[in-house]
Amino acid sequence: MTKPIWIKHAAQLVTLQHELAGPRIKEAMSHLAIIEDGSVWLEDGIIQAVGTTKELEETYTARSDEAEIVDATGHLVTPGLVDPHTHVAFGGSREREFEMRLEGATYMDIMNAGGGIHATTRMTRTATEDELVRQTTKRLDSFLAHGVTTVEGKSGYGLDLETELKQLRVMKRLQAEHPMDIVPTFMGAHAVPTEYKGREEEYVDLIINEMLPVVAKENLAKFNDVFCEVGVFTPEQSERILEAGKLHGLVPKIHADEIEPYQGAELAAKVGAVSAEHLLKASDEGIQAMAEQGVIACLLPATALYLRETAARGRVMIDAGVPVAISTDCNPGSSPTTSMPLVMNLACISMRLTPAESLCAATYNAACAIQMEDKVGSLEVGKQADIVLWSVQNYQELQYLFGVNHVQSVWKKGVKVVG
Amino acid sequence: MTKPIWIKHAAQLVTLQHELAGPRIKEAMSHLAIIEDGSVWLEDGIIQAVGTTKELEETYTARSDEAEIVDATGHLVTPGLVDPHTHVAFGGSREREFEMRLEGATYMDIMNAGGGIHATTRMTRTATEDELVRQTTKRLDSFLAHGVTTVEGKSGYGLDLETELKQLRVMKRLQAEHPMDIVPTFMGAHAVPTEYKGREEEYVDLIINEMLPVVAKENLAKFNDVFCEVGVFTPEQSERILEAGKLHGLVPKIHADEIEPYQGAELAAKVGAVSAEHLLKASDEGIQAMAEQGVIACLLPATALYLRETAARGRVMIDAGVPVAISTDCNPGSSPTTSMPLVMNLACISMRLTPAESLCAATYNAACAIQMEDKVGSLEVGKQADIVLWSVQNYQELQYLFGVNHVQSVWKKGVKVVG
Repeated sequence: MTKPIWIKHAAQLVTLQHELAGPRIKEAMSHLAIIEDGSVWLEDGIIQAVGTTKELEETYTARSDEAEIVDATGHLVTPGLVDPHTHVAFGGSREREFEMRLEGATYMDIMNAGGGIHATTRMTRTATEDELVRQTTKRLDSFLAHGVTTVEGKSGYGLDLETELKQLRVMKRLQAEHPMDIVPTFMGAHAVPTEYKGREEEYVDLIINEMLPVVAKENLAKFNDVFCEVGVFTPEQSERILEAGKLHGLVPKIHADEIEPYQGAELAAKVGAVSAEHLLKASDEGIQAMAEQGVIACLLPATALYLRETAARGRVMIDAGVPVAISTDCNPGSSPTTSMPLVMNLACISMRLTPAESLCAATYNAACAIQMEDKVGSLEVGKQADIVLWSVQNYQELQYLFGVNHVQSVWKKGVKVVG
Repeated sequence: MTKPIWIKHAAQLVTLQHELAGPRIKEAMSHLAIIEDGSVWLEDGIIQAVGTTKELEETYTARSDEAEIVDATGHLVTPGLVDPHTHVAFGGSREREFEMRLEGATYMDIMNAGGGIHATTRMTRTATEDELVRQTTKRLDSFLAHGVTTVEGKSGYGLDLETELKQLRVMKRLQAEHPMDIVPTFMGAHAVPTEYKGREEEYVDLIINEMLPVVAKENLAKFNDVFCEVGVFTPEQSERILEAGKLHGLVPKIHADEIEPYQGAELAAKVGAVSAEHLLKASDEGIQAMAEQGVIACLLPATALYLRETAARGRVMIDAGVPVAISTDCNPGSSPTTSMPLVMNLACISMRLTPAESLCAATYNAACAIQMEDKVGSLEVGKQADIVLWSVQNYQELQYLFGVNHVQSVWKKGVKVVG
């Protein structure tokens, strides 16, 4: 048995308690439900009590000898961050490609040198499961160090049945072996593999007829995601794949309107996706449809920065009533980062979210985007004891002092994993 | 006496040795002078030997018992980073202003609420010297944690003789008390204080006739910097101030062409400034003049990001033959960060520097921008033992895996200060 932990005297304990901070209510995004001089009692991996230090002292002073006491005076305490969109379980690294591009190489130069997404597919296919576990573990450790205690993870660098299953099994194994909670998404429709070039419909059939049934049968994924984009999968193909997934019990997600406007946001609303991703070029009509259907916008400002694109219209979406979550998009091509703190900063800087909205988007709303809000994303009695102690005094400083990882300590299910 | 330290088997030891990596030679910016399986021997605060591990073994194996051995297998080792442009010694914090702006407050709302640069001036004037030392220490600690072992620091939040001297004395005291090397710059001409509104020429006279002589006499600064900008100091006023400083032995620097093109780069070349800062709106002619005079461009891409401006034309400047350095611009208004690693990433992402150019800009060229290249900025025998061990395998990964502080250990003058 682990000792109970009593985190006391937090300058700001950001609870995001549900009744105040529901994600689908536009105004609630900035209601953090903050407790000053806050306390939280963790035991058996669960949050047992949340309140002011004075309130908890009534019950817990009698038991304080058996607990580890953490004095959070002058510090901010929040729920563990949730990253609702990653491609974390991939093989290899592409830093040389990054350098080539800055040295003046063109897209075709890089393709000819064996680069791009197909390089990652190749490296993911050839890596053993153990090797993928090893590489992914390193990234998950980095996520924890940045205050992230739950991540979604997508397949989609296999693009054949065997490797897609391998990626999903790696995540299943890490869910058991690593402290991180990993919520798996099947994304066979991440790209059309080179061997299916010119036969895209056949690859769609393969996903629907061969991949989805096995993924569902082996219970390897919760969500089904599609890259709906000009030159990748059409809205019609995307809809077929997402509807087929629904028949197998997989909840739709959709990479929508990233590079060109393509009716992706509209499709997300039509198929009842839990979230739509990227949305840099989402139309006003698409945003309106998402608001009406309660589709969560999962926005990825670090990717926009890395690709030198204008970030998604986060401010406009919130004002239109769309619940917004944010994510690293951790992947080897367009966002090789694990820093959710930087993503929160960028949500403020590039998308004009307020500091409160940004924190909500990285915790409670992010949990909703992966249907984990019953367990994580806020500090409430009965939820998992996933908690971050930050070396700043308030949530505003967390966003204002940008580019710095202010994590001091992290607890996952009541066990200290960082600091 | 501290034990000697032998850092061995670095996957890449980036030395930036002078003969290869002179800052004023455009092509040299990407010559990092890398040693594979590199070794460095630190003793008495100085680098005593640099080479391959095999080379150092000939001399030092016999002495290995007396040294602390650091196995850098699989890791990158570089010189300590140099930040050549900070306003680190200020009072107070303005996170609430950041939030107000995102909540929709206008510039005037913030001014009316007592915000902006004058808020920092007020808080710096009222802070005691001890309080400023305490606040600045915290920031210097954060710089060290990000691999920065030398910073330049400017006055300029006093805007009266007494407080300008207080800021400079705080830096002098920290140079003695803190591991960081702090190179001081007088910047009485950072803004026109409110009490001189409408009497700008009188404030210029005050700087020239009262501040500069005392600063020089007390030997409190090495450089003299001016904010040459529409609505702040004109090119004529800036020139007067910089020429007056030169008579006192202070080397000119200039905040140039940040917000509007204003002939700042041209003025830097004319007065023989060691560096010109910001340069977001520098003209082609100004860039050409800087190249001809060997003025270093000190570029601040984190500030551009924070202000949502297009970053300076770093790629163009290097191609034109201007030596480029990069910096955080650490200050409470437009760049509240201490992360030089992020600045290096942004130099690649936003300004299209190559990973090698970015690292050179944050080490050797940055040292040249504050005339410290005889002591810091490269790993050469006889220089200070300021060294960073990074948790990445090569300098490309340092830039590619962006937004993450990859520092593992830092030595300052041969003493471990981080990790």
